[in-house]
Amino acid sequence: MQQYDVVGIGNAIVDIIGRCDEAFLTKHGCAKGSMQLVDAAAVAKLYGDMGPAVEISGGSGANTIVGVASFGGKAGFIGKTANDQFGEVFGHDIRTAGVTFKTPPAPKGSEPTGRCLVLVTPDGQRTMNTFLGVSPQLGGGEVDADLVASARIVYLEGYLFDRPEAKAAFRQAANIAAKAGRQVALSLSDSFCVDRHRAEFLDLIRSSIDILFANEAEITSLYETKSFDEAARRAAADTKLAALTRSEKGSVILGGGKSIAIPAASVAKVVDTTGAGDLYAAGFLFGIATGRDLETSGRLGSLAAAEIISHIGARPETKLQDLARAKGLLA
Amino acid sequence: MQQYDVVGIGNAIVDIIGRCDEAFLTKHGCAKGSMQLVDAAAVAKLYGDMGPAVEISGGSGANTIVGVASFGGKAGFIGKTANDQFGEVFGHDIRTAGVTFKTPPAPKGSEPTGRCLVLVTPDGQRTMNTFLGVSPQLGGGEVDADLVASARIVYLEGYLFDRPEAKAAFRQAANIAAKAGRQVALSLSDSFCVDRHRAEFLDLIRSSIDILFANEAEITSLYETKSFDEAARRAAADTKLAALTRSEKGSVILGGGKSIAIPAASVAKVVDTTGAGDLYAAGFLFGIATGRDLETSGRLGSLAAAEIISHIGARPETKLQDLARAKGLLA
Repeated sequence: MQQYDVVGIGNAIVDIIGRCDEAFLTKHGCAKGSMQLVDAAAVAKLYGDMGPAVEISGGSGANTIVGVASFGGKAGFIGKTANDQFGEVFGHDIRTAGVTFKTPPAPKGSEPTGRCLVLVTPDGQRTMNTFLGVSPQLGGGEVDADLVASARIVYLEGYLFDRPEAKAAFRQAANIAAKAGRQVALSLSDSFCVDRHRAEFLDLIRSSIDILFANEAEITSLYETKSFDEAARRAAADTKLAALTRSEKGSVILGGGKSIAIPAASVAKVVDTTGAGDLYAAGFLFGIATGRDLETSGRLGSLAAAEIISHIGARPETKLQDLARAKGLLA
Repeated sequence: MQQYDVVGIGNAIVDIIGRCDEAFLTKHGCAKGSMQLVDAAAVAKLYGDMGPAVEISGGSGANTIVGVASFGGKAGFIGKTANDQFGEVFGHDIRTAGVTFKTPPAPKGSEPTGRCLVLVTPDGQRTMNTFLGVSPQLGGGEVDADLVASARIVYLEGYLFDRPEAKAAFRQAANIAAKAGRQVALSLSDSFCVDRHRAEFLDLIRSSIDILFANEAEITSLYETKSFDEAARRAAADTKLAALTRSEKGSVILGGGKSIAIPAASVAKVVDTTGAGDLYAAGFLFGIATGRDLETSGRLGSLAAAEIISHIGARPETKLQDLARAKGLLA
């Protein structure tokens, strides 16, 4: 069986990215920096109101997996698209990025491929409104057991918890990975998502997760504290390995009884923060899966996050392997 | 009746833009810098071979019309989309750019919305493979006579000549405009397109066109000469007003017995030349429609072309009115 570095399970989403001002967010009741789920009617209404946009494949877990492939890792993805143009775009972009993606699209007549309206304010911050469409209809039977079992690390996108159908696939993948003796990684995805599923997340983390990703808002939401340091202490107690990101303050890696601070990589101009956490996870997971130490893995994460926020969209525009080599982080 | 500055008729296209090297073009038989028409099978094959891409609304005439609106002009567009996701994207992007666009999409089950695979080489040059899809099925009856008659300038995209159905709509619009005493502008679009339809273009230009746009390759192809100066002399004899673009050498405007050279506007880095000619036409048409002199109109064209080649895609990322004000070209 072919060995994969990282296999991810997540929502298959096409991002529709446009610029707006702060007043637009207020008018439409969007909490800046958050992701909220919207239904078909709401996404149509908001799309009609927002300005011209560009479409770029997205999906938090899918972005991470594409990042792993861009570092030269062997990567696979499991996620549900529809048999429509956005589904074709999603499948094309992830496959031609070098990722194994074999989940069959839903038959004609299904709900459409998921889309996310990404509103970018002048400060580069992104606010997301996601219509999941067919994405949560990833059945447990569609989790490719061979693919999952062949991965050094199985990466689960927290957003999948937002719909019960998807949660079943999520748990199934975690079980397959555990039986195969693989590492299981989880991203908390969003502080509001954490708030919606706190007890379940805590239970999952304590029972089944080897590597936890969270940003400051997510980890403090998980532990219901205002103190990052307290949240970090509790994360260190609950997990084998945690990577906590703090935007321009860099990240903190907690593992093996140690706490390692990693600085953020420099960015000339923050254009669009979409995918910063996703790409940090890509670098870190690639590092761990290929046997690199925690500090190097964290630096690979910072490097990938810096690349992604320097342009529109959450898919790398420059091969991350080349960037990492130029920085002396990869041979 | 509401007065429009410019109303355009053209193909409704979504661009799928990706980077490639020169070897990819050679391998796939693409003449660098050209536009070639491909069928559904060929576009699927090429799409499968090209790398990850982004989707941005395009279409030569549509890009021009969006540019006119970005300068603050009152603009309308006529073009055919399908009832699919790319059609929704095209309609959204042009309407929210401030353009009147009322052509109804074709019913479900039609050919899909047109798409153009835009391959950008490291030098920023773009090579296009277009699958027109439903776009040429713009019936003569769908040309909004009131809209056309209310425009100071009616702008025709030369690419429409590539399909007989579209040509009928094109001629109808020209006739309506002529009867209403409006100016009719034509872009030659592509040197290979000129080569395919030379006699018809010459006939149309001499009989019905007030303002002609062409680049160096197109105008020399039209007059079957290697000399730009000779081609320019013949264009001056055949038209009331011609704007001939020459990439980094700027443009030459021929009108009222005069020849005015306009320098290219400076660009820090040429990222993607897609839409350079389209946006030059936008600035020039906006200038002429709003009563500005030839030199100012040409400078508005150069400014818009410089904006568009500084980023991926053929739709402005910065409001052209603001750019023109900053340069002192608009009050």
